[in-house]
Amino acid sequence: MDALLTRLRAAVGPDAVLTDPDVTSAYRRDMMPLAPHGRPLAVVLPSDAGQVQEVVRACAAHRTPIVPRGAGSGLSGAANAVEGCVVLVTTRMNRIVEIDPDNRLAVVEPGVVNLDLRGAVEKHGLFYPPDPSSYDWCTIGGNLSTNAGGLCCVKYGVTTDSVLGLEVVLADGELLKTGRRTVKGVAGYDLTKLFVGSEGTLGVITRATLALRPLPQAPATLVATFSRTADAGVAVARVVREGVVPSLMEIMDRTSIRAVEQYLKTDLNADEALLICQSDAGGEAARRDLAVIEQVCRDSGADLTYTTDDLSEGRDLLAARRAVLNALEVYGAWLTDDVCVPRTRIADLIAGCERIGADLGLRIAVVGHAGDGNMHPTIVYDPTSEDEFARARRAFDEILAVGLALGGTVTGEHGIGKIKREWLAKEIGPVGLRVHREIKRALDPENLFNPGSMFS
Amino acid sequence: MDALLTRLRAAVGPDAVLTDPDVTSAYRRDMMPLAPHGRPLAVVLPSDAGQVQEVVRACAAHRTPIVPRGAGSGLSGAANAVEGCVVLVTTRMNRIVEIDPDNRLAVVEPGVVNLDLRGAVEKHGLFYPPDPSSYDWCTIGGNLSTNAGGLCCVKYGVTTDSVLGLEVVLADGELLKTGRRTVKGVAGYDLTKLFVGSEGTLGVITRATLALRPLPQAPATLVATFSRTADAGVAVARVVREGVVPSLMEIMDRTSIRAVEQYLKTDLNADEALLICQSDAGGEAARRDLAVIEQVCRDSGADLTYTTDDLSEGRDLLAARRAVLNALEVYGAWLTDDVCVPRTRIADLIAGCERIGADLGLRIAVVGHAGDGNMHPTIVYDPTSEDEFARARRAFDEILAVGLALGGTVTGEHGIGKIKREWLAKEIGPVGLRVHREIKRALDPENLFNPGSMFS
Repeated sequence: MDALLTRLRAAVGPDAVLTDPDVTSAYRRDMMPLAPHGRPLAVVLPSDAGQVQEVVRACAAHRTPIVPRGAGSGLSGAANAVEGCVVLVTTRMNRIVEIDPDNRLAVVEPGVVNLDLRGAVEKHGLFYPPDPSSYDWCTIGGNLSTNAGGLCCVKYGVTTDSVLGLEVVLADGELLKTGRRTVKGVAGYDLTKLFVGSEGTLGVITRATLALRPLPQAPATLVATFSRTADAGVAVARVVREGVVPSLMEIMDRTSIRAVEQYLKTDLNADEALLICQSDAGGEAARRDLAVIEQVCRDSGADLTYTTDDLSEGRDLLAARRAVLNALEVYGAWLTDDVCVPRTRIADLIAGCERIGADLGLRIAVVGHAGDGNMHPTIVYDPTSEDEFARARRAFDEILAVGLALGGTVTGEHGIGKIKREWLAKEIGPVGLRVHREIKRALDPENLFNPGSMFS
Repeated sequence: MDALLTRLRAAVGPDAVLTDPDVTSAYRRDMMPLAPHGRPLAVVLPSDAGQVQEVVRACAAHRTPIVPRGAGSGLSGAANAVEGCVVLVTTRMNRIVEIDPDNRLAVVEPGVVNLDLRGAVEKHGLFYPPDPSSYDWCTIGGNLSTNAGGLCCVKYGVTTDSVLGLEVVLADGELLKTGRRTVKGVAGYDLTKLFVGSEGTLGVITRATLALRPLPQAPATLVATFSRTADAGVAVARVVREGVVPSLMEIMDRTSIRAVEQYLKTDLNADEALLICQSDAGGEAARRDLAVIEQVCRDSGADLTYTTDDLSEGRDLLAARRAVLNALEVYGAWLTDDVCVPRTRIADLIAGCERIGADLGLRIAVVGHAGDGNMHPTIVYDPTSEDEFARARRAFDEILAVGLALGGTVTGEHGIGKIKREWLAKEIGPVGLRVHREIKRALDPENLFNPGSMFS
């Protein structure tokens, strides 16, 4: 493998090829503790697309697998190293190449941090919607590869809805350009949306053209508390039915509420469930939206509702939702699941998680994006107890089974990666799996990119 | 081929296999006069997915190409027969299988007419946005296959933005299910969006799960007239820049205006260009949107602006835009092009079309969806003159060259089909074309579906 390392050093410079295991171990895995990971042969940090092409050609020649990686904030192990691979890290390719306010688009390299892009476009009165929880450190390249979501999705969609075109290095080192700079375009297959969400299995994204939106108004915020989870579920379905589209609609279950109350030393006045909604429609329109949601919550049996158009108060209310994972760490390590169900089945999913937690003797807190049915049941476990870890793992799977049985999907935004491969097979069936293999073989016949991730 | 016809009759019933050339000739081509078309061996009209599977298996066994087709309203020849093929018509599969108002989705067969779906979901207070001009007779299956757009796209996107999942019969007759019923989902490759816009080259869509939206408010309407086209172009770019998102923003050039004035015996009071905008944000918000647009138009040099929130008056104003093609028929046959440019380059495209019309001695009227840059320069020609038809064809190509040079794409919504194959190759380049071929070969190794369409 010395020949490969020599070639990699020639391609990206010796400083950009890491081989010391003490250093490379930091690039072995993402944030998902369940996913397997191997030891990389090397970690390379190219600076531009040309270097990525050289790295891909070198690895192809030496039949060495490549695992592309951004910041490593993922929650599916998609970016985890496989034994003896080259981890290709895109964080040095972090230029915002262009912001075009008149055509409302930006061109970026994959290593740009989500928050940096948000800030840069905001100066032009523009908005890049996708906002995964790790937005202050995750990269656009990782967001593209997982088709990341966030709190914005109920109104603004997921990452794929904001992508106009890509530049991708293919398995033979050629540079593919997909998509366009125009708002619309149907020339050929939609390769852009095929690469988005492909989790590094089809190529390395080296550039993206992203659609931007006008910066929304400062949001008004509503909180509603419920003494029955089912009532909160009914409220969500009825908000959808009423035709109101909030810019954020999050739910917390009893376990999340108690943990946050302990952690923040506060009283959320919520017994079983709490809904937080925002509208960024501005002024009168936002007030009208939240008034409809408030009425729906009351009609559905809410104990308390509270509305404010004060921005900092709204931020404080949302802080409870954002504090859940930190609050849970008081009790142990956490393992967050990701399942998306039809919006009418949210209460059923929460009930299922309560049952699983009781059966397995585990604390499972459910928080999630109620507006789109994407729930994150989070399992707390003692990392020093093998038995408890095994039960946590079982709970993780049982939650997915409940989600599928409710007509849902096994991942709403985190991806399949190296942790839900058998669940992908269950969800899409043998014909779906065959088509995945055919597309993978067509674009990556030697199985160079992220082998064994997503499916095998 | 008698054996194939016998098998087809057994699969779908003798009434659903047409072979009389007088009858099948009606299924030979779509609405694009330039595209080549052959004579089908047979036209089959299956009634359900099982029958489609049988037809596909029979054709595969006899190595007879299949051209899938909806109503035939297409404008790229994608549904045109190739010599000796079986045209598979989906119009008998026209059931709205389900409307789920609580989860805002519908499940439909491909033969459902766009207008019928709109009407059915409207009864539930819901809205299916994609509205191609042929919405009163085109089918959802055709809309999916071309990733159709319409007047709504500036605010609501194109067909792919409203699709959650598909059921597709593959080249070996297997039934693939893609996507999901949930709002979000990232399990595996986005096969749904790969099949949408694939123009019948990868499989036959037999069912679709579609996302619906709340029914918008009745629109308010603004008209602005300009004595310089460049000023109208500036106005469009500045509306985008101001962050207003109208629900419709159409432009007509001088040639369109004059034709419509003649046809409708009216005076549009517009010299060089006319903008029509609508906002369906409702009440105060719509008034605010249109006030901003009105100010922008005035600042950009509009001669006249007029705003109304009267629905029927708005409809009358929009009627001028909708009348363009009929108005042009007075002068001869028309050939409508489809090119999408960055929104800042609309005036340049119109100027280019004027130059091409003058050079070639042809009347070219430009109308289009200014809000997303998707223009439809429409060439008028005398169908009895071979020379004029040849010049029309040349104009058609020159317009595409101008669009590409302005940073645009050769099709915003009509597709590549059998008419823009060489333009697809020009736009996406050899690497892009290679990837198209690899995907086609992976999913349809015997080139069963629509061979020679889109690319070869």
